[in-house]
Amino acid sequence: MINYIAPIARLINQFAKLPGVGLKTAQRYALKVLDMSPEEVKAFADALVDAKSEVKVCSVCGNLTDTDPCRICSQRDNSVICVVQEAKDVMAIERLGEYKGVYHVLGGVLDPLQGVGKDDLRLAELFHRLTDNVSEVIIATDTSAEGEATATYIARMIKNYGIKVTRLAQGISIGSELQYADEVTLSRAFTNRREM
Amino acid sequence: MINYIAPIARLINQFAKLPGVGLKTAQRYALKVLDMSPEEVKAFADALVDAKSEVKVCSVCGNLTDTDPCRICSQRDNSVICVVQEAKDVMAIERLGEYKGVYHVLGGVLDPLQGVGKDDLRLAELFHRLTDNVSEVIIATDTSAEGEATATYIARMIKNYGIKVTRLAQGISIGSELQYADEVTLSRAFTNRREM
Repeated sequence: MINYIAPIARLINQFAKLPGVGLKTAQRYALKVLDMSPEEVKAFADALVDAKSEVKVCSVCGNLTDTDPCRICSQRDNSVICVVQEAKDVMAIERLGEYKGVYHVLGGVLDPLQGVGKDDLRLAELFHRLTDNVSEVIIATDTSAEGEATATYIARMIKNYGIKVTRLAQGISIGSELQYADEVTLSRAFTNRREM
Repeated sequence: MINYIAPIARLINQFAKLPGVGLKTAQRYALKVLDMSPEEVKAFADALVDAKSEVKVCSVCGNLTDTDPCRICSQRDNSVICVVQEAKDVMAIERLGEYKGVYHVLGGVLDPLQGVGKDDLRLAELFHRLTDNVSEVIIATDTSAEGEATATYIARMIKNYGIKVTRLAQGISIGSELQYADEVTLSRAFTNRREM
């Protein structure tokens, strides 16, 4: 690293902590900050501190929130619960604007090799929510091996409660060419084919 | 944009002001910040505010500095001046660790179409520095049309002072294949060919 003056070096080091940001990108960001007005920089700094201090985890669903329970838990249809791995998955689904139910954020997936067991996820909290009011649980964990195993485990547990469990459809991505689909995806698409 | 909760939305908007950062990347950065400890986030916010308040422009060379004149101006060989467009060009050259002279940051290039004239650059400050002590001025503006025109203009002015003016060599990039060099670069490489 070159001999940046101290305040610039400190700022570059901070930006370099962000995911996917190397020193060159961090330098570009730092120079942009120096181009901003003092008021803009103050607003940026306040946004950082405020986000950290104001954003909590919802005690019901585990999603990020500034109220407890979160706005989704308190305002939406509590009879359908969509189970996801992380808060960013909630954001991805919310971007659609189609889903009207609530969420349950596990905080990861079962991964014995990484030492992540049942007690490390918010599974007890999920089963605790399965009252008579719940009509369906949609499992939306990733399609990785761990995500699949976690989905299977949760589905088996929930069936004990007599509640309908569904999994997001897996198959060929919309707009992609069949020839480029990987073998597992193509095989899954055959298995899950539906009548037209 | 989806309905992020307010503190997250504010932070995403701030990150989205950085160059090349869209909403998805900004969201990724914001989630990373929420994963940091409060102390880390405070350090990040402080680095932003400190950089803005402590970093000034050197009154001699126009580079970013926290002292005036900057450390390069006060400690290095003042007989060679390298003229660059922006502070980030100084950083790029300093990364080499080879250049021992001082700099002069123009703050841009002559660009009549964008309304950038001679008085908008730190040209008077440059000519003011051309004392008997200066033996060479290296012009390191970009190789864009505007950078070339600015270099030509500065070279003509400096020759009036009887000082040697040089321009960084232009030719085929090291490690690149000849067949991929663009025509202007290849033509320039022929013109500037040197005896072996």
